[in-house]
Amino acid sequence: MTGSGPGSPLGLHRVLDPAGVLPQAAWRLDASPALWPDEVLVRVERLNLDAASFRQLREATGGGAPAMRAEVCRIVAERGKMQNPVTGSGGMLTGVVAEVGPDSPLGLAPGDRIATLVSLSLTPLVITDGLARWDGRSEQVPCDGHAILFGRSIAAVLPGDLPVPLSLAVLDVCGAPALTARVVRQAATGGAPPVVAILGAAGKSGSLSAAAAREAGARSVIGLVPTRAEADLLTASGLADQVVIADARDPAAVAEAVRSAGGPAQVTVVCVDVPGCEGGAVLATADGGTVIFFSMATSFSAAALGAEGVAADITMLIGNRYVPGHAAFALDLVRAEPGARQIFESRTVEG
Amino acid sequence: MTGSGPGSPLGLHRVLDPAGVLPQAAWRLDASPALWPDEVLVRVERLNLDAASFRQLREATGGGAPAMRAEVCRIVAERGKMQNPVTGSGGMLTGVVAEVGPDSPLGLAPGDRIATLVSLSLTPLVITDGLARWDGRSEQVPCDGHAILFGRSIAAVLPGDLPVPLSLAVLDVCGAPALTARVVRQAATGGAPPVVAILGAAGKSGSLSAAAAREAGARSVIGLVPTRAEADLLTASGLADQVVIADARDPAAVAEAVRSAGGPAQVTVVCVDVPGCEGGAVLATADGGTVIFFSMATSFSAAALGAEGVAADITMLIGNRYVPGHAAFALDLVRAEPGARQIFESRTVEG
Repeated sequence: MTGSGPGSPLGLHRVLDPAGVLPQAAWRLDASPALWPDEVLVRVERLNLDAASFRQLREATGGGAPAMRAEVCRIVAERGKMQNPVTGSGGMLTGVVAEVGPDSPLGLAPGDRIATLVSLSLTPLVITDGLARWDGRSEQVPCDGHAILFGRSIAAVLPGDLPVPLSLAVLDVCGAPALTARVVRQAATGGAPPVVAILGAAGKSGSLSAAAAREAGARSVIGLVPTRAEADLLTASGLADQVVIADARDPAAVAEAVRSAGGPAQVTVVCVDVPGCEGGAVLATADGGTVIFFSMATSFSAAALGAEGVAADITMLIGNRYVPGHAAFALDLVRAEPGARQIFESRTVEG
Repeated sequence: MTGSGPGSPLGLHRVLDPAGVLPQAAWRLDASPALWPDEVLVRVERLNLDAASFRQLREATGGGAPAMRAEVCRIVAERGKMQNPVTGSGGMLTGVVAEVGPDSPLGLAPGDRIATLVSLSLTPLVITDGLARWDGRSEQVPCDGHAILFGRSIAAVLPGDLPVPLSLAVLDVCGAPALTARVVRQAATGGAPPVVAILGAAGKSGSLSAAAAREAGARSVIGLVPTRAEADLLTASGLADQVVIADARDPAAVAEAVRSAGGPAQVTVVCVDVPGCEGGAVLATADGGTVIFFSMATSFSAAALGAEGVAADITMLIGNRYVPGHAAFALDLVRAEPGARQIFESRTVEG
């Protein structure tokens, strides 16, 4: 079952409507199982809806299992992918490789158990079991069906030595530690090892970013958290040199907390998933320093105008979730850092 | 008339509601003319509303002069600053320095004619003439009143050798060429001179960014524009080595146009003020390259997920509007590059 023609590594040949856009921006994809030469067919085992999408579905349907199942099946049947039309977001999936096109560059083989590291919002998908095994109460959705990976998609083979829910939670945020490590290394190359501040350091992406900053040679890692309970969790993990408590939405409080712990920071990493953290991140960062925004709640204009408004000569990065080697790097951090694993297990329901 | 206490260089002491936020995020500022020691009092001559705010005001009021005047006066009286409550945006102002606090670090003297380079959305402002001279039909608003600059505000003395409307138009976008030059220089330091693509190169920020890229040592500058008329304008200016026509919202078309002109680019600069240009910018950029997003229409999540979705290992910058020396650099570009001045004069109504 191989499609004709060369296809596009970006999956443009799967876009049905509107023509010419990338699969993520498309309203509808062709999810038929006939492979183009560089594609991979995956037998789906589980969808992992992203948190924003799951919350929206629950609120819109009332949260009952039949209604939740029907709504997800309806979206996927209509769009050829699981992209929540309200939030625009997707999630990821796990499954087993069923067929590999002769020109696929992904290095996968039939039988590999994988997680996709590109969003469900661009992954062609067909559901064949009506999601009968899903109770509607978890973002993790048992699912029978198939999905397609493109030539430039990214997937990670699930490791045999870690529980699957732990691996999934780690892979879900693996871009953050990889980019943090790169930026910290660059800063250290240009001068003295940097002071690194992590806003939301007791969360999943935050704790891994803290571990990555230390491994990459940070002079010190300042972890900022909102509550005493999170501070205790972070202190117990040993991932931060300094733990401070402040509301990340209060710019003056964030700046003062980071300063009191040895700041301002040369590198500030925003992992707090609530709006309004741009000002604090800017003020906590030294002139010439860098802010990495990972939170999807980041406002582009608030960051751009906020830095201008206080004449802050800083570099602001949109946290690209793709860095080569990010999956292996993040899994290795969790293997090497008991503190990071501890935080993940405390935050992963099934972990 | 000097306020008591040390105040804050960020203007936190002027925030009335809600407490603790930065002036830009505040609902209401204290705009009284009594200066704190590091502040500057400006006699306002003209407000320059930003385009988004002006459009919203015109649509909401019907556009008649009395209604437009009343609405701007109402907002400023209520908020102590001209921040459009719908768009969140402001603009800039020109005026003459009336009084300089003894601790002001801005280097201004009474009588200096200046433009503010921080947004009106964070600048304490009082209007005293009811905007009687404004016809409501231009974003440029003749105005009598006063405004306050903080210790960390930014202002530029208007040059005597350029028409004021031209200077204002240049200063309004001066962050873009300064940051473009910095990124191009960094790229050139790390390796060969970079190929630079400018999306929206025949606009104000785009044309200055093209001039800046060349001055900073770009190997070649590719200017992308949407229409034949813009292509002719850009070609006549001589600012780009290659001029290509494509819809910046069509990722495949942008990538192909830039490739055909010698791309992919090591540095891509997005100056197109319409939503949906993230994908094209990502695809037009070589692995290891950098995209600078200046357009305020940029979607943070579209950029972050878009790069991940195509496994693009690129650096994505939020275009910080503040770079030290940006005003002088941009004015010098316009003086040195007749092509840039030509584009500005064709786009500045009063120019």
